[in-house]
Amino acid sequence: MTIVTFLSDFGTADDFVGICHGVILRSCPGAQVVHVTHGIRAQAIGHGARVLAGAIAYLPVGVHLAVVDPGVGSGRRAIALKTGDGRLFVGPDNGILIPAAEVCGGIVEAHEIANPDVMLHPVSRTFHARDVFAPVTGRLAAGMALADVGPALDPADLVRRVGIDHVLDGSLLTASVQHTDRFGNIQLAVFASELDGLFEPGRLAEVVTPDDRYYVRCAETFTDVDPGELVLYADSSGLLSVAANRGRAAELTAAEAGDKIGVEFSPSRHGRIA
Amino acid sequence: MTIVTFLSDFGTADDFVGICHGVILRSCPGAQVVHVTHGIRAQAIGHGARVLAGAIAYLPVGVHLAVVDPGVGSGRRAIALKTGDGRLFVGPDNGILIPAAEVCGGIVEAHEIANPDVMLHPVSRTFHARDVFAPVTGRLAAGMALADVGPALDPADLVRRVGIDHVLDGSLLTASVQHTDRFGNIQLAVFASELDGLFEPGRLAEVVTPDDRYYVRCAETFTDVDPGELVLYADSSGLLSVAANRGRAAELTAAEAGDKIGVEFSPSRHGRIA
Amino acid sequence: MTIVTFLSDFGTADDFVGICHGVILRSCPGAQVVHVTHGIRAQAIGHGARVLAGAIAYLPVGVHLAVVDPGVGSGRRAIALKTGDGRLFVGPDNGILIPAAEVCGGIVEAHEIANPDVMLHPVSRTFHARDVFAPVTGRLAAGMALADVGPALDPADLVRRVGIDHVLDGSLLTASVQHTDRFGNIQLAVFASELDGLFEPGRLAEVVTPDDRYYVRCAETFTDVDPGELVLYADSSGLLSVAANRGRAAELTAAEAGDKIGVEFSPSRHGRIA
Repeated sequence: MTIVTFLSDFGTADDFVGICHGVILRSCPGAQVVHVTHGIRAQAIGHGARVLAGAIAYLPVGVHLAVVDPGVGSGRRAIALKTGDGRLFVGPDNGILIPAAEVCGGIVEAHEIANPDVMLHPVSRTFHARDVFAPVTGRLAAGMALADVGPALDPADLVRRVGIDHVLDGSLLTASVQHTDRFGNIQLAVFASELDGLFEPGRLAEVVTPDDRYYVRCAETFTDVDPGELVLYADSSGLLSVAANRGRAAELTAAEAGDKIGVEFSPSRHGRIA
Repeated sequence: MTIVTFLSDFGTADDFVGICHGVILRSCPGAQVVHVTHGIRAQAIGHGARVLAGAIAYLPVGVHLAVVDPGVGSGRRAIALKTGDGRLFVGPDNGILIPAAEVCGGIVEAHEIANPDVMLHPVSRTFHARDVFAPVTGRLAAGMALADVGPALDPADLVRRVGIDHVLDGSLLTASVQHTDRFGNIQLAVFASELDGLFEPGRLAEVVTPDDRYYVRCAETFTDVDPGELVLYADSSGLLSVAANRGRAAELTAAEAGDKIGVEFSPSRHGRIA
Repeated sequence: MTIVTFLSDFGTADDFVGICHGVILRSCPGAQVVHVTHGIRAQAIGHGARVLAGAIAYLPVGVHLAVVDPGVGSGRRAIALKTGDGRLFVGPDNGILIPAAEVCGGIVEAHEIANPDVMLHPVSRTFHARDVFAPVTGRLAAGMALADVGPALDPADLVRRVGIDHVLDGSLLTASVQHTDRFGNIQLAVFASELDGLFEPGRLAEVVTPDDRYYVRCAETFTDVDPGELVLYADSSGLLSVAANRGRAAELTAAEAGDKIGVEFSPSRHGRIA
């Protein structure tokens, strides 16, 4: 039995996910499909890329389908990759697969999906997940060789995202709100590990939202501060996040996905904020 | 391993779907369940029927459960059907299964679900999906003969929906908004193929919403018009839809599910609108 | 093939559910995972406990994971239980598992999850579902002995919820709104069977919401009253609920999850309300 995982920005109110699931099973009736999430913000490639990168270590080795695809129907390539740890990835060549592939030992083989025999015809112009990505995913899960999807690509030629979701200027971070989760936590579009050591438990910071500014403390988790207080922490995926102990930081600060947030870190762990 | 697909208007916030899934597995522990969608508008039989008809060709042959059931607890019949291509369908006799069955070679055998041995007891008055449809689905997936669900019916006696979701009067279409999807596209309750050839790429049309009117062009997909412009196209299920290239047509026009939309097509492909 | 069921307050917009699903399959690649629901109100233990208790009889025997865990990262214990009918339950020791376990023949064996070998390391402070509960669930599904999770506990020492979600004072019930469902039905946090016989079809009651008061009749189902009228009934899970025939009681009364609702039952089946 082969594992398939599936991440997208399709939501669950429509039939996009169910149709792709059906197409996968048509090629590989025994596939086990794990829906990583379909709650990625519509067309937010960076959001999808970071969520996949944060989740992949917890997913069994398998065929990993990820579709956030604002360029569907244009000339962007469809690709399938193999990583150093033996996983296969399928999706558009827009950068969504790259951070996860790097977590998995890097790309050791890349192919453009170009073989018409692995697609459903006619290929619609708006739903390549159904007509291109899902049938390829199902066939790979069923044992088709990666090279059968189309010609080899040089991994160096794949599209890396150039969109800037965070900027670090000395001790001042500016980052997008990637997502506000079920519990009201504000997830920023930057991993805590990308902050040159500025993030460390105990350090103070000032968080600047579109509406207001807040003094917060860096901590390991939200229960390290008093109830109702805000805290800056690395969430379970490693992403820098703002939470309120026993509260909902998103409502408290009115922060929304897509907002730009400033975080000014104090110059030293015990220092005051400039 | 047997494939089951499941479509409903149950949403995912409640436990309706999970309980039915459990009941199916109790009869058929090896069933693979594909959730086509549970986002059909509450009690919108026509919406469910069209989504199932648009999806079915992409789903593996299996037992197809569909429940949108405003008549639950009243006298409406429960039915199980076999189609020309070997699929089985289970659901209420209110028309939801008919368009999909027609796509699949037509109904070759129909039975009323009446055998108490295939139901869970006591049968609740509000949740036949759990007590009638899911156990029958599971048993059929496990190999029970279709005739065991109850007496044969003449397919001609099944309920066809008489609700009118679109009217075509010359070149003027009036159609309900069936759904506005994750990407802001407005899906109308009519297949493009039902428009007597009026829909063809390049033709102009005037779209009249409750609030305003818009000139739009028929096209193959939304990228065929300039960014921000509206377009009329057949979506990936074949349903007539209004989209905005790089925009959200539903927000632009304030159209909502259930609204009536008028579409006046120009008399010829290159003609102006009357 | 082993059945796993999973209930939580995680919602489906985030990747919490998908990651846990992946972790379960890493230990038990052949597990069939049924998502009972992830729509439990955030951190509402009583809501989760009642939904699981109402659903469990319809789920196949398996390993039942339930996570509503406001105490994550504090000292609350993680537990795994065996019930009289052979089911296994996994979750936090906060009461969420108890009502379901009682439906299943009671707890015959209880263990604290304390063996580090059954967890993922490092154990995060905010996501024990991923690092503790899911790996234990997967291992139990794969056949690990219950005793391997950690030391035995006396079932009498497990946390029972002491939160009061309903109070019955003579013929006056005060209960929380647990949930308003997809169809606008108002589900109260009390089983009809807990009302000392006060609930019986035909009896009159007065329902007092934060905004208004309504005379309603107890009935078996909503179609027992006239269209548009409110009715008090036991829903398909046995929970006392208010519905409107062909209407949406939640919108009609503006009742929301968390509201306190009063229900004054008439003193006898045919009596008037005091």
